[in-house]
Order: sequence, then C-alpha cells, then structure tokens
Amino acid sequence: METMQQAEPATGMCVIWSTVPPSRSEDLAKRLLDKELVACVNITPVRSLYRWKGEACDDREHLLIMKTKKSLADLVIRELKGMHPYEVPEIIVLPVIAGHPPYLAWVQEETRD
Amino acid sequence: METMQQAEPATGMCVIWSTVPPSRSEDLAKRLLDKELVACVNITPVRSLYRWKGEACDDREHLLIMKTKKSLADLVIRELKGMHPYEVPEIIVLPVIAGHPPYLAWVQEETRD
Amino acid sequence: METMQQAEPATGMCVIWSTVPPSRSEDLAKRLLDKELVACVNITPVRSLYRWKGEACDDREHLLIMKTKKSLADLVIRELKGMHPYEVPEIIVLPVIAGHPPYLAWVQEETRD
Repeated sequence: METMQQAEPATGMCVIWSTVPPSRSEDLAKRLLDKELVACVNITPVRSLYRWKGEACDDREHLLIMKTKKSLADLVIRELKGMHPYEVPEIIVLPVIAGHPPYLAWVQEETRD
Repeated sequence: METMQQAEPATGMCVIWSTVPPSRSEDLAKRLLDKELVACVNITPVRSLYRWKGEACDDREHLLIMKTKKSLADLVIRELKGMHPYEVPEIIVLPVIAGHPPYLAWVQEETRD
Repeated sequence: METMQQAEPATGMCVIWSTVPPSRSEDLAKRLLDKELVACVNITPVRSLYRWKGEACDDREHLLIMKTKKSLADLVIRELKGMHPYEVPEIIVLPVIAGHPPYLAWVQEETRD
C-alpha cells in the first residue's frame, strides 16, 4: 500500500456496520436507538456471499449502518452481539475523519455519555 | 478498542456520505459533479431510523456516496450543506487508505485543484 | 478539517469497495471468495453518476463490499483489476478500526495467509 503515513483527524464519531436477517433489522435498530447507543441507523438490503464452516452461503440480509460516538463502539458491539441471532455476527467499526459540525454535535447529543 | 496504534496510509482521497430526500438525490449529485467537487456519486435507497427533537422518525432516504480529494472535503461539506433541504444534514467523511492507483489518479483529475 | 490528530487503532482488517456491472457481481465475488482473497462480499445495487472522458454517465451498477485482511488489500486490488471489465475500475480500501473480536478472527481464518 501507498506508504505516505498520516494520522487521520478524529471527530469522536464512527460508523458501525452489521449484517442482520431482514426480519430483525427494524427491531435491532430501534433497540439500539432506545438505549441511546446510536444516533441514527440506515438500513439497506444486501446480498451476502461467504463460506460458513466450509459451505458456500448466498443470503439476503439487511446492512445496518449505525452512527455513534467512537467511545461507545465497544458497548454497541457487546450489546448488538447479545441481541443478534447469528453465532458470529459481522459488527465492524469505521472511522469518521470529518463532517458537518452541527451533525457531528447532534450525534454526540443523541447518544449516552 | 484494540490498542495496536498505527497511522493509516493516506491516498489523498476520501468518501463522503450524506442522506438526502429521494426526490433531491440526482439534483444534488449532479450539482456537485458540475462544480468538480466530486468525481463520482453512487446513490442507493436506505431506510433511516432516528430521533429528531424527541420524535421517533422512520424515513425513506437516498444515501449519496461521494468520492473526492480529501483536500476538498470541507468545501464539499459547506457546498452540500448550502444545497441540502435539511436543517442538520448528515454529511460525514471516511478515509480511503489504499486503492487501484489509476482510479485514485482519476479522482484527482476529475476534481478541482 | 478538525485538527485533533489521533492514530486509529488497527484491526488488521479492511473493507474494499468496487463498483461493477450488475451482470458480473456474482461471478467476481465468487472468484475472489474461491481464491480466499476475501472472507465475505455484500452486493447492493447503486446508481452511479460521474463523467468519463468528458461525457456525463448515469449507470446502474452493483457495489461490492468486500471484507478481508489489510495485508491482502494490494493483492485483491490487482486480482480484481485483472477480472474487471472496466478500463479504470473503482477499487478503494477503507480501514476497520474495531469490531466484534470473533468476527475479526473469522475474517483472518477465512482468507489466505
């Protein structure tokens, strides 16, 4: 990979992705919102191709795109894992390096301290 | 979070996300392209769950996935905010840490200096 | 952009995006999976607006969202470029800064060393 190293500016915000069964996306999103663990959740349908224990899988899932404080990421991961129907759910965190300041502030206000 | 600290390689490129009303996605995308502020915009429908001023909201939106130079991110944020119909639009920036070199170069060429 | 500099924690994992013709998404995803270059691929339809050699383009594409080891990113880029029908395909890499530990471990196990 390109070698020009540079620490990314931090906004205190992150995006968390998780794939879930379509039947559970609304429920999981609303429970995380009610716990003030995330400020907003976008849901979009995806087709997921992967291997599970050697078997090729081709599933229709919903991708949850959750916006929250970076400091809450570990707690969101633990809570979502506890609600999630899969044995090993995909829950990953991506950094947000900039944004519209009032929106970044809104995410902070909408999520627990 | 995992503590192995590592500055990410930088590519000079970023991805900017914004959620917009479906009726405005094409217009906003084309205006940013015409101003050479972004090289490419992907548009995909999402369902958005969030609270606004204490009210639970459940909206159909379009997610704009914009690819541009990192150095243009602040300008894209300001310009998009000026065109956007929401009071506090979601406009966030994610880092791109590597990519197909000719594509990264194309993004640089397609956007203003 | 905000100036508070902070090296992001690294997980050894990344997400790779590429836009492809809808007719090729399944084939390209399965070939990368078979080569153990990626652990999982989500596919979602997008509308892409951009300019190519001065011409405004408005295409229906599929976005491939691939999860893999960061150490494999360059190889995935080269292999996908070799299979991809476009002259200059979009292939970009985003960092994953945290995640559900068993899932991060699964991505490592499912992809070649």
